[in-house]
Amino acid sequence: MVFEPRNPDFEARVRSSFANQNLMHTMGGSIASIEAGRVVLEMPFNSAFTQQHGFLHAGAVTTMLDSAAGYAAFSLMPVNAEVLTIEFKTNLMSPAKGEHFRFVGEVVKAGRTITFCEASAYAQTDDEAEKKIATMNATMMAVTNQKGVKS
Amino acid sequence: MVFEPRNPDFEARVRSSFANQNLMHTMGGSIASIEAGRVVLEMPFNSAFTQQHGFLHAGAVTTMLDSAAGYAAFSLMPVNAEVLTIEFKTNLMSPAKGEHFRFVGEVVKAGRTITFCEASAYAQTDDEAEKKIATMNATMMAVTNQKGVKS
Amino acid sequence: MVFEPRNPDFEARVRSSFANQNLMHTMGGSIASIEAGRVVLEMPFNSAFTQQHGFLHAGAVTTMLDSAAGYAAFSLMPVNAEVLTIEFKTNLMSPAKGEHFRFVGEVVKAGRTITFCEASAYAQTDDEAEKKIATMNATMMAVTNQKGVKS
Amino acid sequence: MVFEPRNPDFEARVRSSFANQNLMHTMGGSIASIEAGRVVLEMPFNSAFTQQHGFLHAGAVTTMLDSAAGYAAFSLMPVNAEVLTIEFKTNLMSPAKGEHFRFVGEVVKAGRTITFCEASAYAQTDDEAEKKIATMNATMMAVTNQKGVKS
Repeated sequence: MVFEPRNPDFEARVRSSFANQNLMHTMGGSIASIEAGRVVLEMPFNSAFTQQHGFLHAGAVTTMLDSAAGYAAFSLMPVNAEVLTIEFKTNLMSPAKGEHFRFVGEVVKAGRTITFCEASAYAQTDDEAEKKIATMNATMMAVTNQKGVKS
Repeated sequence: MVFEPRNPDFEARVRSSFANQNLMHTMGGSIASIEAGRVVLEMPFNSAFTQQHGFLHAGAVTTMLDSAAGYAAFSLMPVNAEVLTIEFKTNLMSPAKGEHFRFVGEVVKAGRTITFCEASAYAQTDDEAEKKIATMNATMMAVTNQKGVKS
Repeated sequence: MVFEPRNPDFEARVRSSFANQNLMHTMGGSIASIEAGRVVLEMPFNSAFTQQHGFLHAGAVTTMLDSAAGYAAFSLMPVNAEVLTIEFKTNLMSPAKGEHFRFVGEVVKAGRTITFCEASAYAQTDDEAEKKIATMNATMMAVTNQKGVKS
Repeated sequence: MVFEPRNPDFEARVRSSFANQNLMHTMGGSIASIEAGRVVLEMPFNSAFTQQHGFLHAGAVTTMLDSAAGYAAFSLMPVNAEVLTIEFKTNLMSPAKGEHFRFVGEVVKAGRTITFCEASAYAQTDDEAEKKIATMNATMMAVTNQKGVKS
């Protein structure tokens, strides 16, 4: 879908907020691309974030999906708004087995207060086609009352 | 609810699997208690796992909730089964602001293949009553085919 | 949980809105009780609402759960607000097999804009203990802009 | 996605099961098309299934989405399996306002036991482009033990 951003500086704003998410640094997450309503993140496999079988933990996959979806929503919000995740659902289709991961967050519907997003996680392994391993379906909220966000 | 474990050594089995979840070590997560169908995890606040406002990232909260719920399910599974998360939904009721966090995972219904779980996250701050900050609703699956788990 | 209603006439308001839900009449749904933040609905088994095995359709169960949860949220809203369902997740624990059904909707957290609810469905059969057959987890929104609700 | 059906008579099997869903008759639902892994249902607006603002009740929309998703999953199941909905999540993007509705259910991943589906609801009004009003994300299960389905 094509969206009209309400803030022309949306890309700088997403980058600045992303830089403040310590967990993205901790996990080695980075921004692959930012468009209005669509943000792609990446991270390499890292054994510090695995579950008991040696694959990426579902919570680690969810963390990246939530950030991708949240920033996709944030990219369409007005300059005075902050983004808040209300809820998300993650479907774990296959074990998160790979050398590199890609997380695509997209806005499905951007309302004034509520934004619906979808996100997908892909595992990449040398010489193999990328595999979809998980999907997220998330509800984001624009909060203009700073107090609501901060406390 | 009171459940009858199918594996008398369920506590040792949960502890052993938990010890293999690297992400639990990375996040400083620990086991507070294990009962048949109920597992409580804990972690201290750690700024390496925050989002852009300095609170615990929703993905970090989800990681701990998923492990609590997954091990609650695992505690009731037969000795030859592994636990797999099929899907979960997290509701983020309040920012994850606190010094210490507690994650309670409980089985709601344990079927032969499918186990429904609920989990709640609580934030603790000195001198204040514990506050519920998030809930999870998860579907876990018992997998006896090792191949299904490993690849 | 105990909630303080923002509208002292909440019970009359819930009854009036419920009376306008044609689908409640169609399905034979009725109100068993209304408290601030908690609404219980009922319906008898009706073969017009079954799936292919002769049990209540998951969609019929969801309809009643959504109304129970939505009215629980509505009971706490100010007099000028309408309630809108943003999303819900239904877990189907057991087939909806019974002679009579009960649906309990409860508010978990009532924010200014967003209200989190949980609801449970119970099947009743003569001479047997009531059985929980499904749970719902829903996000409701208070809409004060009439236009948003109506179009 | 393109799927290989495990039962060559999948279309007849879906039609036969659909014919046994009394609720589909009650709501005026019909099958628009059946492919392996994709089922499209339709229903006209009917004021017997509305909520308090005169639009289709979220539960009615969910009923049709669940049937569309469930039959999409069923179309790929082996001849001795029945389909069971484990859980679904519905996102309500816009009020279900229209003269005619279309419900597209699609399989995202078909495992041996678990099938992930997505479904979308569209409202149609004379002279206007079809509008997406809701999405569903569902987990279906293949049950070969007849007893599990029937009781």
